[in-house]
Amino acid sequence: MDDALSPTAYRAAMARLSAAVNIVTTDGPAGRAGFTASAVCSVTDAPPTLLVCANRRSASHAAIRANGVLCVNTLAATQRELSDHFAMPVPVDQRFARADWMRLSTGAPALSDAVVAFDCEVADIVTQGTHDVFFARVRAVHLGAPDRPGLVYAGRRYCTLPLGDAAAA
Amino acid sequence: MDDALSPTAYRAAMARLSAAVNIVTTDGPAGRAGFTASAVCSVTDAPPTLLVCANRRSASHAAIRANGVLCVNTLAATQRELSDHFAMPVPVDQRFARADWMRLSTGAPALSDAVVAFDCEVADIVTQGTHDVFFARVRAVHLGAPDRPGLVYAGRRYCTLPLGDAAAA
Repeated sequence: MDDALSPTAYRAAMARLSAAVNIVTTDGPAGRAGFTASAVCSVTDAPPTLLVCANRRSASHAAIRANGVLCVNTLAATQRELSDHFAMPVPVDQRFARADWMRLSTGAPALSDAVVAFDCEVADIVTQGTHDVFFARVRAVHLGAPDRPGLVYAGRRYCTLPLGDAAAA
Repeated sequence: MDDALSPTAYRAAMARLSAAVNIVTTDGPAGRAGFTASAVCSVTDAPPTLLVCANRRSASHAAIRANGVLCVNTLAATQRELSDHFAMPVPVDQRFARADWMRLSTGAPALSDAVVAFDCEVADIVTQGTHDVFFARVRAVHLGAPDRPGLVYAGRRYCTLPLGDAAAA
């Protein structure tokens, strides 16, 4: 580790890598939970699999691990307040009371007006430092209303991603 | 797998999850290689670690695996052509001839005018279906010129991410 980068320098650099904002939820024997996450990405379509990184000290992490299911709800630019609500220390029931939720396949809450919701079973968990990576098999998807600008986090602030950037493509 | 989602339905849903566009490079005993990737995300800052997903059938995957190093170069909106070049079947030397590269710590090519470059040693490899996930410890970073709009892929096209979205934050 003598040539390791400092966590501070790493965070400053990582702030330049933009990412979509999602709320990751779960429900089951360990109860309902949810948190705001940008560390989400697609892994493969055979079988359909995405991944979610979560701090092992978080309550949501423990609930996802125990329930074995999660739903990734990708947010629109109009949903900044909901993102904040799931990122701050707000009781679980108050977090979920701010929006309408549905159930798809696993029982994890899917946001009715998400840009897209991916309902998943956890297939593998890999530990890396402070975090666990959940590899999740996608069982069902829900597409919210189309053609809405997405919510992106970059430069340590929210940004609105204009879709349909045809002129510049 | 009887309740699995089809790969086609999965890809259509995943097109709604925007992601920054990066060129992932490597160099070493197995030679120089590079490919365009959006499946990149931060894992933890303790120790500074990111992940990259790569198809196991790709030449770049084999080179990264053999060299044990990689560099994630996050692109600006002005670098769409370079992104295309590393996404198409173009010989390696021609890919790299289109831009200026530097070396940081590991010897993997870092793009001089990247938004940010993360130079990494591969620490772990996890297989998921058709893809491998490289967990990479960040050894050095390079920050290109600041305050440039980022290149994002969403809705199966390039988008320009306007930074400094202060009015809406």
